Amino acid sequence: MRHALVFFCLFSINVVFAADPLPSWNAGPAKDAIINYVKCATNDGCPLYVTPQERIAVFDNDGTLWSEQPAYFQLLFALDRVRALADQHPEWKTEQPFKAVLENDFKTIAASGKAGLLKIMAVTHTGMTTDEFEKTVRNWIKTARHPEKQVPYTKLVFQPMLELLNFLRANGFKTYIVSGGGIDFLRVWTEDVYGIPPEQVIGSSIKVKLEQRDGKPVLVRQAEIDLIDDKEGKPVGIHRYIGRAPVMAFGNSDGDLQMLQWTDRRENTLKALVHHTDAKREYAYDRESHIGQLDQALKEAQAKGWTVIDMQRDWKRIYPAPTPDN
Amino acid sequence: MRHALVFFCLFSINVVFAADPLPSWNAGPAKDAIINYVKCATNDGCPLYVTPQERIAVFDNDGTLWSEQPAYFQLLFALDRVRALADQHPEWKTEQPFKAVLENDFKTIAASGKAGLLKIMAVTHTGMTTDEFEKTVRNWIKTARHPEKQVPYTKLVFQPMLELLNFLRANGFKTYIVSGGGIDFLRVWTEDVYGIPPEQVIGSSIKVKLEQRDGKPVLVRQAEIDLIDDKEGKPVGIHRYIGRAPVMAFGNSDGDLQMLQWTDRRENTLKALVHHTDAKREYAYDRESHIGQLDQALKEAQAKGWTVIDMQRDWKRIYPAPTPDN
Ligand SMILES: [Ca+2]
Ligand SMILES: [Ca+2]
Repeated sequence: MRHALVFFCLFSINVVFAADPLPSWNAGPAKDAIINYVKCATNDGCPLYVTPQERIAVFDNDGTLWSEQPAYFQLLFALDRVRALADQHPEWKTEQPFKAVLENDFKTIAASGKAGLLKIMAVTHTGMTTDEFEKTVRNWIKTARHPEKQVPYTKLVFQPMLELLNFLRANGFKTYIVSGGGIDFLRVWTEDVYGIPPEQVIGSSIKVKLEQRDGKPVLVRQAEIDLIDDKEGKPVGIHRYIGRAPVMAFGNSDGDLQMLQWTDRRENTLKALVHHTDAKREYAYDRESHIGQLDQALKEAQAKGWTVIDMQRDWKRIYPAPTPDN
Repeated sequence: MRHALVFFCLFSINVVFAADPLPSWNAGPAKDAIINYVKCATNDGCPLYVTPQERIAVFDNDGTLWSEQPAYFQLLFALDRVRALADQHPEWKTEQPFKAVLENDFKTIAASGKAGLLKIMAVTHTGMTTDEFEKTVRNWIKTARHPEKQVPYTKLVFQPMLELLNFLRANGFKTYIVSGGGIDFLRVWTEDVYGIPPEQVIGSSIKVKLEQRDGKPVLVRQAEIDLIDDKEGKPVGIHRYIGRAPVMAFGNSDGDLQMLQWTDRRENTLKALVHHTDAKREYAYDRESHIGQLDQALKEAQAKGWTVIDMQRDWKRIYPAPTPDN
């Protein structure tokens, strides 16, 4: 009996110390910074101790939790929707920017600028009920394939970040998405893919309006911006949805700078940037990129000693291992 | 050893069955409806079973979780703020509706209508940072006294509803406030008083704007409405903040009707109204009241068999027992 107990205790200790909560992360300063922060934040004898209800960790999505090249995936969703709706809109054969979308003329789409993008977003994201939109996204995320990698978009999430989300939740952190992407686009699949429920997703939004259809209330998506959850909008979104400041913040671009600064207001917080340095396994871009531009935020991270996660150096693998069913 | 085990098991069984999760509720249809709903919602063999992640329960605040007479408590906060700020505003001695507030002339305040109310709200709720506003509310909620009952406002929460909140949380429900009151007013004290953290409080809001002060980011409260979380705004607020429909909803007035209808969209949900019928222990009002008017919602509840909680009949006590420190 005594021997069995001793054995059991030794075994437990081995398990606790041997298990690496971040197996896809290489040893190095980024991994150390995260693990040391969490160890201290959850130890009430530590100067960085954070009470359980204050353990809020916020994550940008595009480029931080999943890839964002060759274009934001939600834009690729919108282009797919234009193609799917084209039969109902014969006028699109001659009307820009829809003509360009149908002809895969990306130069003309890009040249249509913000006005063109808004036209595409209006026809693909507004006018329907929230139920209808959710159903459309659910179907797309299940069936669509990334144009270059030829896999479902949800296979292009970062395995090291999935481990980080789980590690934080196992230590009592509430994990939030704070994305420039659309809140109603994200909420459909974030629970399955990241373990983040809809009520912990913050994103850009449009206004919705209550109407009665067939005697039942529905919410109809309006062509009117509610919140742009990017740059200075990120602290606004955090205040609106969470009502208190996070203690950990992860981003990858200048659009996250204000979120990291907002997190930096209080002491004993961790701010981190994912730096896309891996052209071979993912994509490499920063200062010059039109998507996920990283310039000012990287300078400020270096000046202030924030954590910079170098994808090539810090991550053993980028994407989850293929599972038998795909 | 065997005797000890048998004794222990019997004891456990007794505890489980003897403990009444809602001791301040009288036996009757309202208590039965709630307990039966929760029992079935948490039993996966039951037709009303609800998965843990869908166990969302929403509560109106004014008149549902605490009293709202002789006026919404947030309005009484605003009047207290006008009095506190009067020294810095000598012009208020002659300017309405401030003059009326300073002279306790409630007839003139009421006669100033919506325009007057907006003036009072603007000077007391906007222009400061979110940190400053939070500090002001925190101090007021600690020190202010209800004009009739002469106790702190937080002593005027309903003991039966506190028990209900705890009972639901013990059964895996996430409890939310969905209030017409101000979200930033509520979030300061709901965690201490109701056990509801800031991120589970939905309410009316104004816009905030990111600014730099002394080299640090702050959010400044703007004189511009963001969301009126009342009537048709309640489903909008629920969609915005939670992103999925609740399965239990509790209100007390016509302002909650759309929230109850929204909850009623799916099967196997519980909708309930608190009916203020107890002039002796609290207040009695419904169809004719200017505060918390309850007319259409009561008719619909009766027609559709929603639960009506009759305060006089269903509640053994209204407020929490006085504690030694007050
Ligand atoms: Ca990003
Ligand atoms: Ca109410």
